[in-house]
Amino acid sequence: MTSAHHSPSPARRYVMTFACEDRPGIVHAITGAIVEAGGNIVESRQFESGDSHRFYMRVEILTDASLDEVRAALAAPIESFGIEAEIDEVGRPVRTLVLTSKSTHCLNDLLFQTSIGNLPIEVPLVIANHDTPARYAEFHGVPFEHRPVTSAEEKAAFEDRVREAVVEHDIELVVLARYMQILSPELSAELSGRCINIHHSFLPGFKGANPYRQAHARGVKQIGATAHFVTDDLDEGPIIEQEVIRVDHTRSPQELMAIGQDTEVRTLREAVGLFAQRRVLLDGSRTIVFR
Amino acid sequence: MTSAHHSPSPARRYVMTFACEDRPGIVHAITGAIVEAGGNIVESRQFESGDSHRFYMRVEILTDASLDEVRAALAAPIESFGIEAEIDEVGRPVRTLVLTSKSTHCLNDLLFQTSIGNLPIEVPLVIANHDTPARYAEFHGVPFEHRPVTSAEEKAAFEDRVREAVVEHDIELVVLARYMQILSPELSAELSGRCINIHHSFLPGFKGANPYRQAHARGVKQIGATAHFVTDDLDEGPIIEQEVIRVDHTRSPQELMAIGQDTEVRTLREAVGLFAQRRVLLDGSRTIVFR
Amino acid sequence: MTSAHHSPSPARRYVMTFACEDRPGIVHAITGAIVEAGGNIVESRQFESGDSHRFYMRVEILTDASLDEVRAALAAPIESFGIEAEIDEVGRPVRTLVLTSKSTHCLNDLLFQTSIGNLPIEVPLVIANHDTPARYAEFHGVPFEHRPVTSAEEKAAFEDRVREAVVEHDIELVVLARYMQILSPELSAELSGRCINIHHSFLPGFKGANPYRQAHARGVKQIGATAHFVTDDLDEGPIIEQEVIRVDHTRSPQELMAIGQDTEVRTLREAVGLFAQRRVLLDGSRTIVFR
Amino acid sequence: MTSAHHSPSPARRYVMTFACEDRPGIVHAITGAIVEAGGNIVESRQFESGDSHRFYMRVEILTDASLDEVRAALAAPIESFGIEAEIDEVGRPVRTLVLTSKSTHCLNDLLFQTSIGNLPIEVPLVIANHDTPARYAEFHGVPFEHRPVTSAEEKAAFEDRVREAVVEHDIELVVLARYMQILSPELSAELSGRCINIHHSFLPGFKGANPYRQAHARGVKQIGATAHFVTDDLDEGPIIEQEVIRVDHTRSPQELMAIGQDTEVRTLREAVGLFAQRRVLLDGSRTIVFR
Repeated sequence: MTSAHHSPSPARRYVMTFACEDRPGIVHAITGAIVEAGGNIVESRQFESGDSHRFYMRVEILTDASLDEVRAALAAPIESFGIEAEIDEVGRPVRTLVLTSKSTHCLNDLLFQTSIGNLPIEVPLVIANHDTPARYAEFHGVPFEHRPVTSAEEKAAFEDRVREAVVEHDIELVVLARYMQILSPELSAELSGRCINIHHSFLPGFKGANPYRQAHARGVKQIGATAHFVTDDLDEGPIIEQEVIRVDHTRSPQELMAIGQDTEVRTLREAVGLFAQRRVLLDGSRTIVFR
Repeated sequence: MTSAHHSPSPARRYVMTFACEDRPGIVHAITGAIVEAGGNIVESRQFESGDSHRFYMRVEILTDASLDEVRAALAAPIESFGIEAEIDEVGRPVRTLVLTSKSTHCLNDLLFQTSIGNLPIEVPLVIANHDTPARYAEFHGVPFEHRPVTSAEEKAAFEDRVREAVVEHDIELVVLARYMQILSPELSAELSGRCINIHHSFLPGFKGANPYRQAHARGVKQIGATAHFVTDDLDEGPIIEQEVIRVDHTRSPQELMAIGQDTEVRTLREAVGLFAQRRVLLDGSRTIVFR
Repeated sequence: MTSAHHSPSPARRYVMTFACEDRPGIVHAITGAIVEAGGNIVESRQFESGDSHRFYMRVEILTDASLDEVRAALAAPIESFGIEAEIDEVGRPVRTLVLTSKSTHCLNDLLFQTSIGNLPIEVPLVIANHDTPARYAEFHGVPFEHRPVTSAEEKAAFEDRVREAVVEHDIELVVLARYMQILSPELSAELSGRCINIHHSFLPGFKGANPYRQAHARGVKQIGATAHFVTDDLDEGPIIEQEVIRVDHTRSPQELMAIGQDTEVRTLREAVGLFAQRRVLLDGSRTIVFR
Repeated sequence: MTSAHHSPSPARRYVMTFACEDRPGIVHAITGAIVEAGGNIVESRQFESGDSHRFYMRVEILTDASLDEVRAALAAPIESFGIEAEIDEVGRPVRTLVLTSKSTHCLNDLLFQTSIGNLPIEVPLVIANHDTPARYAEFHGVPFEHRPVTSAEEKAAFEDRVREAVVEHDIELVVLARYMQILSPELSAELSGRCINIHHSFLPGFKGANPYRQAHARGVKQIGATAHFVTDDLDEGPIIEQEVIRVDHTRSPQELMAIGQDTEVRTLREAVGLFAQRRVLLDGSRTIVFR
C-alpha cells in the first residue's frame, strides 16, 4: 500500500494473528501494545466465532520498531489473555515443502507464481513419488527428490523423509500438489494446521477417487476443486478455498479432468497465498479466512 | 431474432426436438423434411451421446407453413428413424402447475418473471400445503388451492389432486417451488421428465434436510442450488441447472439460508426457462441442455 | 450470530462506523471506550486508505448498555481524533425512499426481500413517474405517489417533492430503482453519499443510454450491472457493487435486456443491503466496502 | 467422445465450419454430402445471424473416409451455396506463432497447456522484443527469437520478420501474448481473423494503457480481461472471450495487476483453445462462438 508515502516513512510492516477465548478488552489491550510499539494499523479484521466462542484477529501495522521490540510490546496482553499469537514481517516468504506425483499443473503454477513474485513463499524442496516433476523443479532452481511409493515400506520411508525435511528446512507449510497418496494418520496429525491438500472436486460432493468420472456420471453442470487442511479424516479437513467452473453434457470425463485442472490450480494457489499472508486461522473444523 | 426483418417475412417460428438411437442420415432426413415444409433453420444443435449412443437434436425454423403442415412433412423421417419428436410454436407458454409450501421466494419470482414476459410459461394453478403463498398467487391472478399435508391420508389426497389437476389443466410441467414434501414413488414415476424440483444445495453435496446447517458446519466457501427432474430416487434425479455463490465464515446458518434463497430462485427460474424453451432433453440419468 | 448463546446474554447489539485522518492510537482509543461501555467486539474491520491517508473502521459489539450510554462513552475519542462516526442498533431498518419508473423488477425485488426479512430497510414511500409500479407498492402496503416528469417544470416539481419526502419521512437512503431520469446536479449534491443508482451496464463500459444495444453491437461475452452512489457527474459516482453474467452471440438486444434485469436486481439488492448494514464508506471517488 | 466405442469404429473424426448468406436447404445439402461420405454427425451447431443474415455451421463427424474424400463429397454444396468452408481433422494441432514481450505469464501458460495436451496447438516459434521469455521457450523446446523494438525501423523489421515467419512456418494463428506493441494497420489487416490479442481489461471499459491503474482509480469491484481478434481499430476488434474476477478496496494497482494476470491467462487460453477447435467464426464486428 502507499502508506509508505507518509514521511518520515516507517521502516517496517508487520502482520500478526491472535486467537483466544473471547472476552472483553482483547482488542483494546492489543492495540494499546501496538501504540506502545509506535505502530500504526494499516489493515485489520476481528471475528468472534459463535460456534467456539473464540476470538480471532489479524492486523497489519507500520512501525519503526524492530520485530523483537514489537514482540516485546505485545508479550503482556498475549500473556494475560492467554492468546495464541503469530507476529512476523509482511512479505517474508513462507518456507514451503511441496509433495507431488505425476501431474505437474499445480506444481508448475506454484513455482511459476512464486518466481514472478505473485506468491509469498519459498520452496527449498520438492519431493515426488514420480520423476516427471523433476525438470519443472530444476527449471525453477528448486532441489528435487524422487522417492517411489510402491510398498508400505517405501511409503513409511517417504513420510520419514518428509518429517526429516520439515526439520532440515524449517518448513512452515507442506503443500500436497496432487500428491495422490493418503498421508498416514500419524503424519497428518503431526502436520495439523500446516498441511494443505487440493482435492479435485467440490467437496463434500464426490469424495474419494476419480471425482471427474463421478461428476460425468452424475451429469453435474459445474465442477470444482477444494483446498483444505489435511487431517486424518480423509477429505474432511477444514476447507480453505473452493472454486467451480461451468461444464455441460458435451464433456467427457477426460475433458472434465482437463477443465478441472485449471480450477485445481487456481484454488490451491489462492489457498497457499492466503495461508502465506497469514489470513487463514483454524476454528475447530472450520477456517476463518480474513481476506 | 431479427430474421423477421427478411421480406417477405415468414409468418411463423417453430421449435422441434428429436431423440433416437444414433445412425447416419438423421439430420439429412429431418432437414429434408424441413426444406419440404418451406422451413429455414434459424438455430440448431445436435449431439450424439457417447454414453447412450443416442442422438439428440433441437432446431428452430421460420416458415409460412402451419403447425400441421410442418408435422405432416416430418412424419416420414420420424417414422423411419423411430424418433421421439416434439414440434411446437416458439414462445407458446408451457402450461405449468406449481406446488409450494411456506417459502414464497421461488413462487414470487416464477410468477413475476412470467408476468413481465421473461418466462414462457402460464400457470393455471398453484397448490400449496400452507396458505402463505395465497396472496402472491392472487396478486398475479393465479388460482390457488391450500391443501394441508399433515397425515398420510392428506398426503395421498394432495397427490390425487395433483394428478387430477394435471389432466384438468393439460399440465406439461410440474414445478416443485420449495414444496418441501417428498413425492410418492408412484407420482414421481407418473411425472417422470416433466417435474422439476429445486434442491437448496449444490448436489451431490448436502443431500437431505437442512443443507444450510450442514454447509455451515462443514465451513464450505461456496453454497449452491440444484434444479433437477424428480425421480423416485430422492435428490438423485437428472440435474438440469446448478448455481453457486461465495460465502465466508461470518455467515450463520440463517444467513446462509437467506443468501441461498437467491441462488435457488435463479437456478429454478433458469431450469424452468430452459425446459419451456425445449432446451432440456433426457439422456438416461443425465440431461442434454441445448443453450 | 450465536454469541447471544452466552449467558447472561447481553441485551443489545450495536454497529458503528468511524472515518478520520489516519494517525496512531485510533483503534486503541475507540476500543477503550467500547470496553468502558461494557462492550464486546463481535466483528470488526479497519482499513487505512493509501490514496487519501484516511482511516476507516466498522465494528459490531454486544453490550447491556443503552444506545445513549454507548454514544456517551465514545464521545471523547470521536472528539479528540476528529472522527466522523455513526453509531446505531444492528438491524434497525434504514428508512428508504424508492424512486422508480416503468420497470418494476428492481422495485418488486426490494419490496419482496424486505417483506421476507432479507433486507434491513423500511420503505415509507415509493415515488414514480409512471403508475405501473403502483400495484406492487400497494401489494406490499407501501404508500405510492405517481408524479409524471414530462417537462422541466414537472421535473423540478418531482425533485422538490423528493426533498420534501426526505424530510417528512426522515429518509436515510434514496434508491433509484431504474428511475431512468437524471437527477439535477443540485439534488445529486444534496443527496451525496445517501443516494444509490443501479446502472444497467458494467461501468465504465457502455455509459449512457441503451447499454444492452451497445453490448449486442459490440458482441461482448458478459454483460453486467453497476450500483453506485449518485453524483452530479453522470455514471461516474463511486461504485458500490458490480455483477456480470455470461451471454453469447445468440442473444438479441431484447434478450440481453431480460437477462440483464436479473443482474440489475441482484446488484442493487446487494448494494442496498451493504449500505443498510453500514458496510459502505466513502473514500473520495471510491467506496470502502467492509463485507 | 466415446463414439469410438462403436464397432467397427470409424477411423477418423473431422470438423468443418461453414459460412454463407442465409437461404433454405443449406443444412440439408451439407448433411446429404456428409451421408454420402459415410459420415455420422457427433456434434453440430447452426446459427443464422439476424444482424448480417448470414448462416454459420460447425459440425464434427465420424467416418472411414479420407480427408480428400470428405472434401470431394462436400465440394458440390459448397460450390452451389457459395459457402466459405473449412474442413480438417479433429485435434490436428493449429500452427501458432506467439509474439510476446517481458511478461511471461501468458506465454508460460500457453506452452505448458500445450505440453500437457490441453491445448490443440503447436508453436514452431516465439518472437519477443525482450529476451526474458527466452528460457521459457527453451524449456518447452520452442525456437525463440529476440528482436528489440526501440525504433520505427526496428518495428518495421519486427513486422517483416512476422510476415516471413507466417509463410515459413505455415502459421494459422498469431497470438499476441502480452506483446504490448501496437501492430501496424497493414499487418493487422493482413492477419485479419487469424490474430488474437489479450487485452488486460474488461473491454470496452478501460481501453488503452495501464487499465489496472484506471480500475483502481475508478474503484471497480470486478476486473477482467478480453481476448479479441486484432483489427486496425485498436482495442475494438471482435471479442472472442471475456473473464472477470472480484476485487475490493484493499487492492493496490500492483495487486490488481497480479490478480488480473490470472484472468488474462485463462481468457487467452480459452480463446486460443476455441479458435484451435474451430469454434470461433467471424460475423462482421462480432464473433459466433460455438462452444
